[in-house]
Amino acid sequence: MWDFVSDQPKTPLLDLIESPADLRRLRESELRQVADELRTDLIDAVSRTGGHLGAGLGVVELTVALHYVFDTPADRIIWDVGHQAYPHKILTGRRARMRTVRQEGGLSGFAKRTESDFDPFGAGHSSTSISAGLGMAVARDLSGGKNNIVAVIGDGAMSAGMAYEAMNNAGALDARLIVILNDNDMSIAPPTGAMSAYLARLVSGKTYRGLRDRAKTLSKILPDFMREGARKTEEFTRGFFTGGTLFEELGFYYVGPIDGHDLDHLLPVLKNVRDAQNGPILVHVVTRKGKGYAPAESSADKYHGVAKFDVVTGTQAKASSKGNAPSYTTVFAESLIQEARDDDKIVAINAAMPSGTGLDLFGEAFPTRTFDVGIAEQHAVTFAAGLASEGYKPFVAIYSTFLQRAYDQIVHDVAIQHLPVRFAIDRAGFVGADGPTHAGSFDTGFLVPLPGMVVMAAADEAELRHMVRTAALYEDGPISFRYPRGNGVGVEMPARGEALAIGKGRVLVEGTKVAILSFGSRLADSLAAAEELETFGLSTTVADARFAKPLDAELITRLAREHEVLLLVEEGATGGFASQVLHLLSERGLMEHGLKVRSLIMPDLFVDHASPDAMIKSSGLDKAGIVDAVFKALGKGATRVMQA
Amino acid sequence: MWDFVSDQPKTPLLDLIESPADLRRLRESELRQVADELRTDLIDAVSRTGGHLGAGLGVVELTVALHYVFDTPADRIIWDVGHQAYPHKILTGRRARMRTVRQEGGLSGFAKRTESDFDPFGAGHSSTSISAGLGMAVARDLSGGKNNIVAVIGDGAMSAGMAYEAMNNAGALDARLIVILNDNDMSIAPPTGAMSAYLARLVSGKTYRGLRDRAKTLSKILPDFMREGARKTEEFTRGFFTGGTLFEELGFYYVGPIDGHDLDHLLPVLKNVRDAQNGPILVHVVTRKGKGYAPAESSADKYHGVAKFDVVTGTQAKASSKGNAPSYTTVFAESLIQEARDDDKIVAINAAMPSGTGLDLFGEAFPTRTFDVGIAEQHAVTFAAGLASEGYKPFVAIYSTFLQRAYDQIVHDVAIQHLPVRFAIDRAGFVGADGPTHAGSFDTGFLVPLPGMVVMAAADEAELRHMVRTAALYEDGPISFRYPRGNGVGVEMPARGEALAIGKGRVLVEGTKVAILSFGSRLADSLAAAEELETFGLSTTVADARFAKPLDAELITRLAREHEVLLLVEEGATGGFASQVLHLLSERGLMEHGLKVRSLIMPDLFVDHASPDAMIKSSGLDKAGIVDAVFKALGKGATRVMQA
Repeated sequence: MWDFVSDQPKTPLLDLIESPADLRRLRESELRQVADELRTDLIDAVSRTGGHLGAGLGVVELTVALHYVFDTPADRIIWDVGHQAYPHKILTGRRARMRTVRQEGGLSGFAKRTESDFDPFGAGHSSTSISAGLGMAVARDLSGGKNNIVAVIGDGAMSAGMAYEAMNNAGALDARLIVILNDNDMSIAPPTGAMSAYLARLVSGKTYRGLRDRAKTLSKILPDFMREGARKTEEFTRGFFTGGTLFEELGFYYVGPIDGHDLDHLLPVLKNVRDAQNGPILVHVVTRKGKGYAPAESSADKYHGVAKFDVVTGTQAKASSKGNAPSYTTVFAESLIQEARDDDKIVAINAAMPSGTGLDLFGEAFPTRTFDVGIAEQHAVTFAAGLASEGYKPFVAIYSTFLQRAYDQIVHDVAIQHLPVRFAIDRAGFVGADGPTHAGSFDTGFLVPLPGMVVMAAADEAELRHMVRTAALYEDGPISFRYPRGNGVGVEMPARGEALAIGKGRVLVEGTKVAILSFGSRLADSLAAAEELETFGLSTTVADARFAKPLDAELITRLAREHEVLLLVEEGATGGFASQVLHLLSERGLMEHGLKVRSLIMPDLFVDHASPDAMIKSSGLDKAGIVDAVFKALGKGATRVMQA
Repeated sequence: MWDFVSDQPKTPLLDLIESPADLRRLRESELRQVADELRTDLIDAVSRTGGHLGAGLGVVELTVALHYVFDTPADRIIWDVGHQAYPHKILTGRRARMRTVRQEGGLSGFAKRTESDFDPFGAGHSSTSISAGLGMAVARDLSGGKNNIVAVIGDGAMSAGMAYEAMNNAGALDARLIVILNDNDMSIAPPTGAMSAYLARLVSGKTYRGLRDRAKTLSKILPDFMREGARKTEEFTRGFFTGGTLFEELGFYYVGPIDGHDLDHLLPVLKNVRDAQNGPILVHVVTRKGKGYAPAESSADKYHGVAKFDVVTGTQAKASSKGNAPSYTTVFAESLIQEARDDDKIVAINAAMPSGTGLDLFGEAFPTRTFDVGIAEQHAVTFAAGLASEGYKPFVAIYSTFLQRAYDQIVHDVAIQHLPVRFAIDRAGFVGADGPTHAGSFDTGFLVPLPGMVVMAAADEAELRHMVRTAALYEDGPISFRYPRGNGVGVEMPARGEALAIGKGRVLVEGTKVAILSFGSRLADSLAAAEELETFGLSTTVADARFAKPLDAELITRLAREHEVLLLVEEGATGGFASQVLHLLSERGLMEHGLKVRSLIMPDLFVDHASPDAMIKSSGLDKAGIVDAVFKALGKGATRVMQA
């Protein structure tokens, strides 16, 4: 149904719901309609803004059932990752703001504590919800509270070690905690790993066993439900007796699998686990990503993340592209394919991000040399170290923000052993709509202190191609290269990468008064800033450091000696390139004769979501910010004032 | 038997073994004696050096059996953690150097690639071996090789998510990989977690089921072994049919449990898994830590790590103590207990290190408020974040080096949400005999870039007490404090900690020419260096920064303005305190008027094991190094030259 006056779907029941308390005043028989209206509203909202859709569509009924059965916000619902929390946001007082999702100043695309009391724990990265929920459950028990804690986690997130660590601990503590395993058999990429195969066997019902024992156990904890259950269809009853052994061995009661789109299944099960639980319980709910919207259901990625789209046809708006420059991700993948054609020791590893990292393309070219290890960054890195120890050339492609998960493995298994693992660090710098949880701020800072690491950043897409080749040929230890989200700057692409001299930067423009030394993505704006500075009579050198480690000490010394201002520009936090240069200048006594050294790096705050360009601008890392920083260093006030 | 001439045990068979090839020339019937000699030799060696003993004693028979059955080094044996690798070292050409273990210039206490071809992958941290082994197995298959890959991992290490991630991936890849689960039911601390309870059930034999199915499966992969098995005692045969479902669900063939001290069990099983495997297989071996040495078997920690000891009595030499100052670990624990008596919201979390962190003492005082989550640092931090989100005051006590495992959780779950989790970072700085894998080098560097973090370091044991109280009272966000391994410097202890002003340092000595600004453990040497500098007529200020974040900008500005030299001293790598100060000085233009700023931090290399004092000295972080750095900054050459 559509309201042609407002150009919005008609949603009479949903219109009554300002908060879950309103939902709980409805009759159970009305919930089916609420779910339908919620789904329609969600599709409409995301069609106007873009965002995550498939995951939310899959949990519409589950969201309605959870808020109906549980006393939120006193009962805590923790959405793992948070992609799927849009329906939850609509039901918890944020419906009017849904059209601001992922826009600057608008709602976050994930659950977020500062956004609502109904978001008890924020997320963005995967597989944290059971740990957080267990902490909350223990806090409740220490305080003598009675509320329920519900963690909703996808099957893909179950491949992460952190989820296992949390289950292992929850089982031992025997804490009263409900884990809803939202099994849609597809997180972002198709599932990988033995756990997902196991879940598939549970769902297929082929692992029947111990029927009588299980019935006895369940009847103890779920007495009411069992009576209900006995009256249901055979398919329904059967679900309760299928497998679950693995979870039971870890100390959880296992219930499922049940149909996550059937409220007649969800409501009685959730009520019973709410009322009868006395230890950790896992409810295995089977859903379909993209459920109820044909274009999503028939799409390969189930509309995981979408641009604005036409509701009727499902056609998505095309992402704007800077002069049709290729994306860095594609350049990485194509360059690596080139190298791998010549060198059969090159292998590629990703952690549940084949298309995000471009390794889907690599996998088409070299299926036996491509490894998607699941959401398992720790394992990914040490697995790569194992390959390197046997003479292979592993490229580990992980986003900057997710590489944080593998820090110890980088230190302990790669750097200390000086193994030549190659780190392709995508999404380095600001990432836009995903906001602070996904910002690639810290990678250079956490890599550059490691002895023996080579740390590069690509200034443009041609540089990235050179760096892929450089990494492919470099065999003396670990090496990394970072590159930003989105499209390149539009430089001419070399047909083939050339190996860069390790630890050598390059000078693009020679000047005399000001030196701008850029590391990575801010080079184009540095060049533009230099042009503007020239118009003010400030002769400006622009150099691209290429390496944060080893530093080009010769170049930096020359820049320091021959200029009045040295501005270090880096789309990263402290501890990275700029810090390394400051240490070098200090060590060599190069700042004692009047040189004005300044760093233009990310600000010391978690920058909220906005477009990447807006984040760069607000951080002063754009052309205008670079020009301003030079003027400020010279003690001459800001440009814009001078221009006025 | 003892050779009283050499004052060493008589080991006629072991004396024949220069490498595993020699072992493999012996008859199976001689291996029992080899094992006995190996055990005696191990006890003798460690009694003279100190080191890890209990773990090695537990795997004597397993080590002999592995090298006898497998063709090392072509077949790879990966010892997880590496505590237990001493018998392996003795059999692989390093027997003569065993008395140098963990000594400067001697053998490492862990497996180490650069030490031997028989160490295909080094370790020190736990739970990496399956990932590394899977990488090697994949490399072998890509190369068309035929060798075997064997990862030996303890039951404690199985609580880490990384091990699960690796099993999940191995099961999916169906790679030919042997995992030996060395189940001694005690890694360093008593085991925690549902997995360890599960293993105990397997061993107790109470989980019998699916007998017929399992027999069928096993008979397919282990045809020869099954025939053998049928002739063994009932107990032996039984082992093969007990449980293992959890591992099987993850795609492993499960064999066990078997008696890890009975060569008649180990040899046929290992031969069969060697010959018959075609996918990942887990052999569950039950051992006793400390086996065969009465003082170890009867000790609570099974002689996990020991000082030199008397072989007959087991009496260990007392660790030397600087003027009987208490250990930092004890001061931390006692101070936290004081705070927790007044504040029932304080809870404490550790990751399988109750005694190492001092939380065993806290646990005795507050058993319900103490949580050992197992070797699971990722979970530990997010679990703490969950507690903090509900108003509790969690102290997470994790060694600096192991906190690297939880970096993403610190960023994503704690810092971004600005939750007041307290990080007690023990073993910060050089740790001595454990060497580079355990050095606490990077913590300040990876924490200080995080927006909203408060980062402290204790200069002495009294400061630590103040910092515990400061952290207990601070509720505005995450806060950390680092402190070194070993004993305090012997300052007078306050009865109770006092809350420090956030972001404020303190001046201990006022001077005019040189300023030494220390962060953390190097304060005492800085004070001593200042005294020596005074004798050269160099009036020296000494300040303790206390905070790397927020910096005491006022103090630093004053030090920079009023001195000719500013020396920053920090027992850590780049990116930490010194880097932050350099950024501040650069931003404020305080280095442009001739100030000589220098950093004295850890060198850019992984420092091999030695005593902590030797490591500090060789890094130039001792008194002499500080004095030298000042003279160097002044362009006056080194002190020792001047003194001569």
